Amino acid sequence: MDYSVGKYDVAVVGIGHAGCEAALATARMGLKTVAFAINLDSIALMACNPSIGGPGKGNMVREIDALGGQMAINVDKTFIQVRMLNTKKGPAVRALRAQLDKRAYCAAMKYTVESQENLDIVQEEVVKILVEGEKVKGVVTKTGGVYEARAVILTTGVYLRGRIVIGDLSYSSGPSGLFPANELSKSLESLGLELGRFKTGTPPRIHKDSVDFSKMIIQPGDDVITPFSYTSEKIQREQVPCWLTYTNETTHKIIAENLHRAPLYTGEIKGVGPRYCPSVEMKIVNFKDKKSHQIFIEPEGNGTREMYVQGLSTSLPADVQIAMTHSVKGLENAKIMRFGYAIEYDFVVPTQLKPTLETKAVQGLYMAGQINGTSGYEEAAAQGLIAGINAALKIKEKEPLVLSRSDAYIGVLIDDLVTKGVTEPYRILTSRAEYRLLLRQDNADLRLMDIGHSIGLISDDRYEKFLKKKRLIDDEIKRLKSIKITPTAKVNEVLTGLNTAKLNSPSTLAELLKRPELDYEKLKVLDEDREQLPDDVIEQVEIATAYEGYIERQMSQVAQFKKMENKKIPDDIDYDEIYGLGFEAREKLKEVKPISIGQASRISGVNPSDVTVLLIYLETKRRKSRHE
Amino acid sequence: MDYSVGKYDVAVVGIGHAGCEAALATARMGLKTVAFAINLDSIALMACNPSIGGPGKGNMVREIDALGGQMAINVDKTFIQVRMLNTKKGPAVRALRAQLDKRAYCAAMKYTVESQENLDIVQEEVVKILVEGEKVKGVVTKTGGVYEARAVILTTGVYLRGRIVIGDLSYSSGPSGLFPANELSKSLESLGLELGRFKTGTPPRIHKDSVDFSKMIIQPGDDVITPFSYTSEKIQREQVPCWLTYTNETTHKIIAENLHRAPLYTGEIKGVGPRYCPSVEMKIVNFKDKKSHQIFIEPEGNGTREMYVQGLSTSLPADVQIAMTHSVKGLENAKIMRFGYAIEYDFVVPTQLKPTLETKAVQGLYMAGQINGTSGYEEAAAQGLIAGINAALKIKEKEPLVLSRSDAYIGVLIDDLVTKGVTEPYRILTSRAEYRLLLRQDNADLRLMDIGHSIGLISDDRYEKFLKKKRLIDDEIKRLKSIKITPTAKVNEVLTGLNTAKLNSPSTLAELLKRPELDYEKLKVLDEDREQLPDDVIEQVEIATAYEGYIERQMSQVAQFKKMENKKIPDDIDYDEIYGLGFEAREKLKEVKPISIGQASRISGVNPSDVTVLLIYLETKRRKSRHE
Repeated sequence: MDYSVGKYDVAVVGIGHAGCEAALATARMGLKTVAFAINLDSIALMACNPSIGGPGKGNMVREIDALGGQMAINVDKTFIQVRMLNTKKGPAVRALRAQLDKRAYCAAMKYTVESQENLDIVQEEVVKILVEGEKVKGVVTKTGGVYEARAVILTTGVYLRGRIVIGDLSYSSGPSGLFPANELSKSLESLGLELGRFKTGTPPRIHKDSVDFSKMIIQPGDDVITPFSYTSEKIQREQVPCWLTYTNETTHKIIAENLHRAPLYTGEIKGVGPRYCPSVEMKIVNFKDKKSHQIFIEPEGNGTREMYVQGLSTSLPADVQIAMTHSVKGLENAKIMRFGYAIEYDFVVPTQLKPTLETKAVQGLYMAGQINGTSGYEEAAAQGLIAGINAALKIKEKEPLVLSRSDAYIGVLIDDLVTKGVTEPYRILTSRAEYRLLLRQDNADLRLMDIGHSIGLISDDRYEKFLKKKRLIDDEIKRLKSIKITPTAKVNEVLTGLNTAKLNSPSTLAELLKRPELDYEKLKVLDEDREQLPDDVIEQVEIATAYEGYIERQMSQVAQFKKMENKKIPDDIDYDEIYGLGFEAREKLKEVKPISIGQASRISGVNPSDVTVLLIYLETKRRKSRHE
Repeated sequence: MDYSVGKYDVAVVGIGHAGCEAALATARMGLKTVAFAINLDSIALMACNPSIGGPGKGNMVREIDALGGQMAINVDKTFIQVRMLNTKKGPAVRALRAQLDKRAYCAAMKYTVESQENLDIVQEEVVKILVEGEKVKGVVTKTGGVYEARAVILTTGVYLRGRIVIGDLSYSSGPSGLFPANELSKSLESLGLELGRFKTGTPPRIHKDSVDFSKMIIQPGDDVITPFSYTSEKIQREQVPCWLTYTNETTHKIIAENLHRAPLYTGEIKGVGPRYCPSVEMKIVNFKDKKSHQIFIEPEGNGTREMYVQGLSTSLPADVQIAMTHSVKGLENAKIMRFGYAIEYDFVVPTQLKPTLETKAVQGLYMAGQINGTSGYEEAAAQGLIAGINAALKIKEKEPLVLSRSDAYIGVLIDDLVTKGVTEPYRILTSRAEYRLLLRQDNADLRLMDIGHSIGLISDDRYEKFLKKKRLIDDEIKRLKSIKITPTAKVNEVLTGLNTAKLNSPSTLAELLKRPELDYEKLKVLDEDREQLPDDVIEQVEIATAYEGYIERQMSQVAQFKKMENKKIPDDIDYDEIYGLGFEAREKLKEVKPISIGQASRISGVNPSDVTVLLIYLETKRRKSRHE
């Protein structure tokens, strides 16, 4: 029997990485929010690897932080190791990555959402979305609770009709040992939404005391910790190492000989898995020539002896898992505490979404995270935040927030999802970004904090600090450009001492800073009266100066790109009346409903000639309407 | 497809409160042990109230500690409040009770079992018990893993064919949001074991910020903390209060009006629930005249805002749960984070067990905890420890450990289970103990640490400390009995000052200490040269002296009782050949297979006349065999 619980502005279904950000965002933006989890002890569960960040992903975590999200703050509270990756490469591909204490991260996030004003947390399975006309009206829970809501955000992760597969064993289940959500999919289908089936997987977890680390390569944390959140002061913490080992020919032989028992190849698993996080059996099959693959042994926390075997994700039968694990150097006697498994689950085809992450079919119904066909905690959190922000902005009758591909990795991610759709679980990669020199992990605040503040998720206090930093950077760049160094004998002696060429004519400090041999610190001898600036300011000054040419080139590309993004396509456009569009283009445009010429041009099947037709059509229409 | 994992001495199925103690005991006794949980994140889950201890229960926790178990140690690590109950009553009913940080307790126990040598922890569902002839051979897991074992201990809690019921909603499930174990029951039935069906339940959990504590009575912790474990030194810790409120006539009216929707009364729930921890709807029905019942609001930890509503356990529909919660003073606006629910589960009729907790049907198969029809974490842990100890002793071909009713509450608990069976979930109570003045919470070490040491669970180091304490107590009692105080004017002046009668004739210090007005501290003025003794020694000296008469009387009753306990009944006794036994007695004796005349006499249906017949039969047989 259904019963009424109350009225909310927003209901969030699922409290994983997407759900936490979504619910926190709407609650912090002043909206009365309720969020549901099947098990409150599994809030923000890291069902897969115990780490957050890495190339592209780490950038997104900082973008989330700059927009006022929570992930980075709680990562900083609970990491057990931090590494800046690719430090020897350019700043565009540097990436921050943290190993977390899994249980502590869960607990911290649970406490954060519990402590959030305007936010109610309820352990209940949501079984139905309520819709009236084309508008969402709320949700119904398993016990019959009717929660009215003006917006509903679905962040269901892998729980929708979840099914675990290990060898020939398969059963209905959420992530290991937790309940699935078997009813909600039907409700989504009845709303006319198209669902797909993906799969993801985990490797075995092993006992620390059964590993021979002396046969592995140690991977310690950084000497100097870079925090994830712009709010974190310097952090000093004892760090825990990870360990590197490799699969070998024996491992590959064991797997190859058991492929007839691998659910991925027997047809047992029908869902498509993540290309960039493949199971070990897929690696063996797809890269036959590779003699070995990396395996990272990662601690799951300080208060546990479980370790994660990164690189050995598998749904092979348990006996094969044991044999292949034992074939790896250092894991000869490894004791498996949890077996790896694959999990299949329903996702919603994401081209059914607007760039705001609202469904086109149902007003007020948003989706974020794995339900949109992505993989990864960071991808989920990023979408959760944007869905939450947009749900709140819509209720407040404000303009939506759509980050462009030149604003943020989050923009790239969401544009890819809603424009191109997915054929496999989507993972962010630096190579997916056209303007990655601009979308650096070090400047997410400079890119996004204005937005975070304007929507109300960055406090005035925090914003003031940010503005001060920005001012310092701008002033310092100006100052370096304005100070001319004359080529005196003294100056050239200093330059020679710094292993760099002498000056023949006067040069600004900025010009000198462009020299690869020099950096801000070294220039101090020629710039003795300068004030001491904070490290993060110096970093921005150095990058802006050293990469000035590249950055300017990307900026002008962005200007071009933005022109097309700003050519908006009205909601009510009728593609059937546009003469000259190719058949495929017309179909795809009707399906994706792009909001701009820019987005239209990225749809596969929409050719440059179609874009020209579209541009002419819109221009003609614009002129006509002006004359009317 | 089944595959062989390896050979163990002991396999423990389930890693809750019983499983932890069982697995730790066998591993610490040097046996290679494997323990299985459906979800490793739920080890030692406190699915019900976030507290341990209380009358009888607290005594058992200390008995567990004295025998070398773990519960008390981890309670001391993670409590957020401690109270000694009934301090104004006699020492027999004083009881220690702790509120715990639920998540921290789980994490601590997981780390303890993970860190234990000889113990492997595996996340797997056990689906089958392997038996050859009448001997257990191992277990098979859901993935087909065959773990050979010489002993198997089942500690399955409420997971066996678990079914959650809330109003008209019911579904197969373990405790909230976790997977049930649906296959093992069949394996047990196929071994000829008789299963029964019990139910237990939990109340709603509410959000701290939605409670009006100003309308409630505060229940702070003790000013001076008494640790649970004899290994703990003095503990100083900031404590968190609980809060007392009451149901009222409105609450009772809401429940009464909705009884037609209560699964306990509609026939939806068939399992019998715990009498001493009833649901609120049962309290209303069974105690119609009571105008109100106590409700304790207990924090679930320091890192969460969830609070437990002790006293409001229910399986009423969710809407009724909301209404009745809101009717309670201080809970008018309480936000429910998790709804209460009932859970039905299979248990094994415990008269099928020997006092060692081994099944009579299958050698090497042991059961402990809720599977034996008990309720409570402490009852579970106590049985787990005894089952573990006995499994280990049997493998080592040593005498089993059977604690008698005069040794420990644990003895009372197990004797009740295996002798009388259960008709409802069994909870320990001080009233179940005949010799409760002896089975105090303060003297569990004096009663049991010799045993703990002799079986190898108490280290030599710890035992030495204990022996020293015991020596100090004995010496001091002797000393007090030996020192005569002469009735001088000075002495009588002191006694008058202490508000107690003057002496007319010489008296020992021990005799003076018996006076209710005096205590050890006060007697110092008459005993100035005495050494300063530790508090726990003084406590024992005081109790032994003040209650000497009562204790002596109980000791002589125990001597009588032990006579009957020591009259052992041989395993191969044939009750059918004993002339003169009543029909019911014969049936019951054949079923229970008591190990002693004492145990036989406690079987319901075995009358004093039957006991006499048995005694004569055994005596005749003994004489005969002597003559042969």
